[in-house]
Amino acid sequence: MKLYNAPMPAPNPRRVRIFLAEKGVTLPMVEVGIMTGDIKKPDHLARDPMGQLPTLELDDGSFMSETVAICRYLESVYPNPPLFGRTPLETARIDQWTRRIEFQAGTPAGMFWRHAHPFTARVVVPQYKEFGESNRGHYEKALGWLDRELSARPFLAGADYTIADICLLTLVDFGDWIGLKVPDDLGNLRAWHARVSERPSAKA
Amino acid sequence: MKLYNAPMPAPNPRRVRIFLAEKGVTLPMVEVGIMTGDIKKPDHLARDPMGQLPTLELDDGSFMSETVAICRYLESVYPNPPLFGRTPLETARIDQWTRRIEFQAGTPAGMFWRHAHPFTARVVVPQYKEFGESNRGHYEKALGWLDRELSARPFLAGADYTIADICLLTLVDFGDWIGLKVPDDLGNLRAWHARVSERPSAKA
Repeated sequence: MKLYNAPMPAPNPRRVRIFLAEKGVTLPMVEVGIMTGDIKKPDHLARDPMGQLPTLELDDGSFMSETVAICRYLESVYPNPPLFGRTPLETARIDQWTRRIEFQAGTPAGMFWRHAHPFTARVVVPQYKEFGESNRGHYEKALGWLDRELSARPFLAGADYTIADICLLTLVDFGDWIGLKVPDDLGNLRAWHARVSERPSAKA
Repeated sequence: MKLYNAPMPAPNPRRVRIFLAEKGVTLPMVEVGIMTGDIKKPDHLARDPMGQLPTLELDDGSFMSETVAICRYLESVYPNPPLFGRTPLETARIDQWTRRIEFQAGTPAGMFWRHAHPFTARVVVPQYKEFGESNRGHYEKALGWLDRELSARPFLAGADYTIADICLLTLVDFGDWIGLKVPDDLGNLRAWHARVSERPSAKA
């Protein structure tokens, strides 16, 4: 297998890199330029018709897109340590948290990035700046909720570090980079962030 | 188990109802009013802190949110016919399609609904109408891509009807209801829609 990848600060490829680091697995990686526009050129569109990253090339030459789907497949190849749960109920609860993070926090962060950030102004035409800025409040509201949830347990889905934590870690770090800071008063979330950032995988 | 539910046109509860109908399973259902505001009142917030539907109540009295997570859990309880694949690779491919539909087509439809539709004007304050309208093009572009994909196979992920088809069916029908029609020239998508709408489960 081979992973088409992009470096920090791109959050989605980093999700797969952290996932692999937790498994202790190294895959061949090929970098596809985002700023160079290579991500939207025919070579990469043949791998992913939406021109996104990461993309996994399987040993049969076929491709797989969508970060969490890629990780779910890699979990079946490298089952230990489990990052998608040990039982169907655990798997579904981890899915619930992964989806909540993506929809409740990831969507507003993405809309802020696309519509309010100067970095994307050349590719998102037109930007709807007032709408974009309005997403800061939605993002912070979602973080506040996650902070309350994290008062009761060390990781999002319970006692174990899972793909849901990977999704939130990469989102919070990307948010920080684009100017969406974690509010100072969210002590549980900040303690969680320090905890997951200390894991060696966070450097991936 | 018990499902907290809302009637048409709400697309998310319908996804679970179609899923259960494909399995030939009936669960007790309790309706929670969206227009009455009951969905945001303490009784329901105790089930889902985000005040969303559907919500599954498990036999131990705990709750599960997020449509696809709920269906993934129900798949483990009622495995036949499989709607999440038979092998880990099939499961990951179906996941890829489910996520593409939700992110590429579902997000713009949702943004149109929240920001451009008069129905939501009382609860989404302020609406960013120009931004909302701009999502029509993103939605139609995603449908065009799905139309091309559907030229090669009967269902989104291959030869079998899966949760990915359920997600697209409920989205297309909701889109139609809010004024996002499937363009006439998308013949593969329209044929697929007729095919999946003929299944008895589509009435759920």
